[in-house]
Amino acid sequence: MAAAAPGDEIGARAMAMIADLARHTDEPGRLTRLYLSPAHRACADATAALMRDAGLAVSEDALGTIVGRREGPTPDAPTLMIGSHIDSVVNAGIYDGPLGVVCGILAADLLRNESLPFALEILAFGDEENVRFPTSLASSSALAGHFKPEWLEGRDAGGTSLREALLAFGGDPEGIAAIARDPARTLGYLEVHIEQGPVLEARDLAVGVVTAINGATRARCTVEGMAGHAGTVPMGMRQDALAATAEMIALVERAGTAARDAVATVGVCEVEPGALNVIPARTRFTLDIRAPDDAVRAALVEEIVSGCRAIAERRGVTFAEERFMDQAATAMDERLAAALETGAARAGEATIRLPSGAGHDAVATARLCPSAMLFVRCAGGISHNPAESIDAADAGAAVRTLVEAVRVLGQGAGG
Amino acid sequence: MAAAAPGDEIGARAMAMIADLARHTDEPGRLTRLYLSPAHRACADATAALMRDAGLAVSEDALGTIVGRREGPTPDAPTLMIGSHIDSVVNAGIYDGPLGVVCGILAADLLRNESLPFALEILAFGDEENVRFPTSLASSSALAGHFKPEWLEGRDAGGTSLREALLAFGGDPEGIAAIARDPARTLGYLEVHIEQGPVLEARDLAVGVVTAINGATRARCTVEGMAGHAGTVPMGMRQDALAATAEMIALVERAGTAARDAVATVGVCEVEPGALNVIPARTRFTLDIRAPDDAVRAALVEEIVSGCRAIAERRGVTFAEERFMDQAATAMDERLAAALETGAARAGEATIRLPSGAGHDAVATARLCPSAMLFVRCAGGISHNPAESIDAADAGAAVRTLVEAVRVLGQGAGG
Repeated sequence: MAAAAPGDEIGARAMAMIADLARHTDEPGRLTRLYLSPAHRACADATAALMRDAGLAVSEDALGTIVGRREGPTPDAPTLMIGSHIDSVVNAGIYDGPLGVVCGILAADLLRNESLPFALEILAFGDEENVRFPTSLASSSALAGHFKPEWLEGRDAGGTSLREALLAFGGDPEGIAAIARDPARTLGYLEVHIEQGPVLEARDLAVGVVTAINGATRARCTVEGMAGHAGTVPMGMRQDALAATAEMIALVERAGTAARDAVATVGVCEVEPGALNVIPARTRFTLDIRAPDDAVRAALVEEIVSGCRAIAERRGVTFAEERFMDQAATAMDERLAAALETGAARAGEATIRLPSGAGHDAVATARLCPSAMLFVRCAGGISHNPAESIDAADAGAAVRTLVEAVRVLGQGAGG
Repeated sequence: MAAAAPGDEIGARAMAMIADLARHTDEPGRLTRLYLSPAHRACADATAALMRDAGLAVSEDALGTIVGRREGPTPDAPTLMIGSHIDSVVNAGIYDGPLGVVCGILAADLLRNESLPFALEILAFGDEENVRFPTSLASSSALAGHFKPEWLEGRDAGGTSLREALLAFGGDPEGIAAIARDPARTLGYLEVHIEQGPVLEARDLAVGVVTAINGATRARCTVEGMAGHAGTVPMGMRQDALAATAEMIALVERAGTAARDAVATVGVCEVEPGALNVIPARTRFTLDIRAPDDAVRAALVEEIVSGCRAIAERRGVTFAEERFMDQAATAMDERLAAALETGAARAGEATIRLPSGAGHDAVATARLCPSAMLFVRCAGGISHNPAESIDAADAGAAVRTLVEAVRVLGQGAGG
């Protein structure tokens, strides 16, 4: 245990700060904090106040990202960024995002009186969940110069464009290009985030170091058979779309299990006409296939899609697949990941390495600078749900790991 | 071919009469004729007119069944009934029901000048589809004395009770018990009906003789697993309700195919939460299992249900089954079935025997008297659909088969 700051006390501070931020919601009775909403505004201001309390100089960029900065020893010293997001899904848990921001703020606070060979910035992004507008990691992408101007014209369900919402928030559509950082002056990006999966809990570990953020392929599939009377069409004369789909779902599960570190899921399956006494004529289902290794994922997608085609052909039904996402994996930076691992060890925490199945701001920052992530155990792997829960002691372990990792990088940068 | 009445001409007459009845619908632009509706009233009156044209004496029973009667040679001669129904499902085809009524009327017309040793009745039932009220073959069940008084209090979607609708129709709730026939004076019941399946078409036959009306077991099933993030929960740590259900659907298909003359169908499968990136937590699906042999069906149901339980146990999900129908098969009367077979042969039609996967009024009449059915080929096996279609020549074959079968029975009864 780090003697300077017992984990329990730090963890308790983290939990109190997260609870404080959770008060800001767009919907009474549950946490919903969409990008550029009034709750986001209030939460951004509260985050800025926490940063100031930690001795950071606070600014807000043109897309509403709150930046708490501590200058480096010289004007041309590079910047180490630590961040996560403060927007949420609808009916969210309180840790997804704010945990990482709060850990960064606490780490900066604990390091306040130590000299570091780089500037330190804590960032609170606003558009990670991509729930309100048709964007993709808008606020962190801008850092890497990858904000797409057409995103400004995208509209939310109420018809408000991102540009309009940004102006109402106090942002500056004209200033977005200037958010982009100089890679040469950016040392790296670290992000603490709840795991949103069950692996650390199953391994009885507080924290884990991310190897890569999985690439993902998503597709909508349709199977067309022939409707018929469930009582009168003999089994041998059927073209049952659901029976065919069941065989495809079994293939998805079998192939996904066999592929290294991959996951493959059918989350949606709709049946038409969907009547007890009618042989299904059509199904629509989804494929969500992820892996930390793009070649593994590509091979898995090919195995599943060609297998579905073969099943359809044998059964006399049709299979159509519309792929609408093919996103490469994002490998984490080995030096930063090793620093997190060393930091954890110095903080007294055992770790494993594990892939991230979910996307994160680190996908966007990795296009700018070396990036790495530390996962924190969460109860039952539950996330995007009010039941999301972590232990205060694990939050403390994450802060202490982050502090040690920054020290490791400071020693590396200095030496 | 029967020389007296070429099949094509009789078939054309049948088609014209069916088209005439099809004009009566509760919904403009499509055929919907629910029990006791204004369209049913108009269709019943049109049916009565057709019966009178065929020389029959028409009456209407307390439940609105239209009865066209030709007396027997003596007051105590038994009655041979021929019937089907004139109600329809919503957005129906025009042959399901009316074909059988029209074939009966045409047979009576063709036999008008022949002596028969029994009375002949053509019946047009009103409540076969059981769409409007929570009843089960109300009008034909009453013939067998099995009308349940509580059915009178059942209400349609608009809140109207069967009693109220019956009074508005001109029926008589107090007269229902008197509808019951004396088994000793009822020779039997014959029904012509479209097959509503693809077997006769596949065998290139106009007509077929029904062996039994399948028994049916129906159940609602629920599988409960555990929701999870489709990206973060490793395959080996999942309790995916849909993957489990897919294995169950495969079992239903495999076992249903192996069981003699049986069919087993999953027509409904709903997934919760039903999101692309969420591992399914729960599915609800239906089982519809039918067979002409009750022992075969019971064994099949047991195989499927115990198999689903085993799949659930192995996967760590739960399986619950709520059985809401367990209806025994109705064997057709061998002597009447043989008469239909002989009649078909005399009419020049080859036949096969086949089970009926759908329910019919003959299920109710079989509790009163020997009953048998003649199936007529329909295009693509399609029924309960405006695309329902039969050939005029096949309608003619059915009428001629029916006429010959009545003659066979007349000779048998006389000899």
